Amino acid sequence: MVIGTMAFDALETPFGKVDRIIGGSATYAAWAASNFVHPIKQVSIIGGDFPEEELAALRERGVEFEGVDVIPDGKSFFWSGKYHMDMNTRDSLITDLNVLAQFDPKIPESYQDCDYIMLGNLVPAVQLQVLDQLQNKPKLIIMDTMNFWMDIAMDKLKEVLKRVDLIMVNDSEARQLSGEYSLVKAAKAIQAMGPKYIIIKKGEHGALLFYGDKIFSAPALPLEDVFDPTGAGDTFAGGFIGYLARTDDLSFSNMKVAVVIGSAMASFCVEKFGPTRMKELTAQDIEARVASFVDLMDVDIEISLAV
Amino acid sequence: MVIGTMAFDALETPFGKVDRIIGGSATYAAWAASNFVHPIKQVSIIGGDFPEEELAALRERGVEFEGVDVIPDGKSFFWSGKYHMDMNTRDSLITDLNVLAQFDPKIPESYQDCDYIMLGNLVPAVQLQVLDQLQNKPKLIIMDTMNFWMDIAMDKLKEVLKRVDLIMVNDSEARQLSGEYSLVKAAKAIQAMGPKYIIIKKGEHGALLFYGDKIFSAPALPLEDVFDPTGAGDTFAGGFIGYLARTDDLSFSNMKVAVVIGSAMASFCVEKFGPTRMKELTAQDIEARVASFVDLMDVDIEISLAV
Repeated sequence: MVIGTMAFDALETPFGKVDRIIGGSATYAAWAASNFVHPIKQVSIIGGDFPEEELAALRERGVEFEGVDVIPDGKSFFWSGKYHMDMNTRDSLITDLNVLAQFDPKIPESYQDCDYIMLGNLVPAVQLQVLDQLQNKPKLIIMDTMNFWMDIAMDKLKEVLKRVDLIMVNDSEARQLSGEYSLVKAAKAIQAMGPKYIIIKKGEHGALLFYGDKIFSAPALPLEDVFDPTGAGDTFAGGFIGYLARTDDLSFSNMKVAVVIGSAMASFCVEKFGPTRMKELTAQDIEARVASFVDLMDVDIEISLAV
Repeated sequence: MVIGTMAFDALETPFGKVDRIIGGSATYAAWAASNFVHPIKQVSIIGGDFPEEELAALRERGVEFEGVDVIPDGKSFFWSGKYHMDMNTRDSLITDLNVLAQFDPKIPESYQDCDYIMLGNLVPAVQLQVLDQLQNKPKLIIMDTMNFWMDIAMDKLKEVLKRVDLIMVNDSEARQLSGEYSLVKAAKAIQAMGPKYIIIKKGEHGALLFYGDKIFSAPALPLEDVFDPTGAGDTFAGGFIGYLARTDDLSFSNMKVAVVIGSAMASFCVEKFGPTRMKELTAQDIEARVASFVDLMDVDIEISLAV
């Protein structure tokens, strides 16, 4: 089950611009996860303007929409942003909530069998509303959030944190949430707030997975061109949880594999505007990309300093 | 053979300050390399103020000083810097060249058997002067440099680049040297200038090794506290080349191990002010730290997406 936005984006990067392309956290997550598992049960809200062919393309990949509110007279959430040369910083130009302002998620009965749940970046109160409706204890609940909610809704955010297994944040968000500069200390502080697992996403520098005292560091694939980073984090999350749902194995060793899978999916996402690249992927593409990650990390170390 | 500075530093970090501590690229490199190989043959210049006990401590580790000019009436190179909270940015407060202004390296006859050579960050003309004096072709010449030389001595720097096997730079230096933002493109452009191997150091984000079309990504160890990053790059270089000299194996697979060894040595360096931590290390400490890196990177991936 994926809870998040399905939206339109207008994007400008140093490499070009698009005025209107499909976006939203739940859209990216579903595209990524659909390579690994189905059905994927979406919870979102869209306006009558959301293209039927986009829904059909996702439906073909095993994505279900019973939990998606359609407001025929409403307009879908719209975000417009401009990236700087380093692709890590961006300016939000326009944020039109539109139908998202009235998002009141209802979890359908047919969704209650979901074992793997992704709470996309949303108002913490809405994330709580979803958690309150779950009748069974899922095997894994992961959440995303952002600095904005830390600024204006920290109390509610802390309530969400107590009830999830894993949180994904970027490095600056981890620092803000914990008040710690060292990411090791930040992860410990966030673990104390609830989630057993912390993933700290560092963009072109990879990702760190923390669990207890264990740390795993996954690299990002060095790319010739990063065309558009929009959706990379949601794509990471979708690949990560999709792979875990497919393998149904929550051991730390499998979690580490899932982090690499998520990183591989994100490395595709940034190659073209919006979810364009995600729609083209084949199983062979993904296997080859994962093999590139294996090469990138491969080292065989056995040292002895005895004289 | 290590060519570089032996100096005094005054350091201020968010965690404290020291007014006068031993520093210099050749000092850090020698401390790191001495865990793996000896003799280490230094080429540097110092004033009469350089403490005899520091030389004695290095001598005990197998470091030789025939190539070190001592100017009894002169003062050793002095650098003073202040680090900001992120520890990646710093202000140089004072740079007193002192005897370094008259550095005119003479390679002693007894150094001509060196197969592994580290050219520390120095005026490119001085690096060239060293290369001109080598009578035999070493197995490996590595070099360090900095943005300052790119600004004021790019032509000479390019001459050095043509004559070395490996260059180590940080990410912003790689971008400046190549004029490319993407590190993949930057590495290709720098390879075209001469060195077959490029190491891009990314501080807390680890390091990338490029060779032909191959890339290896080594993580940095996430640390609770980075106390003082001074000398971390030189310590990395010393650990890297020291391990290669010890194993005398220049295969790409051994180069990758050497990058991890260098990263492990750098992770010690930052734990205390100046080279303090480097002086305490035992073989057991190093083996345990390398094992932590192995854990940090360890993942066993075998995926098949066939349905």
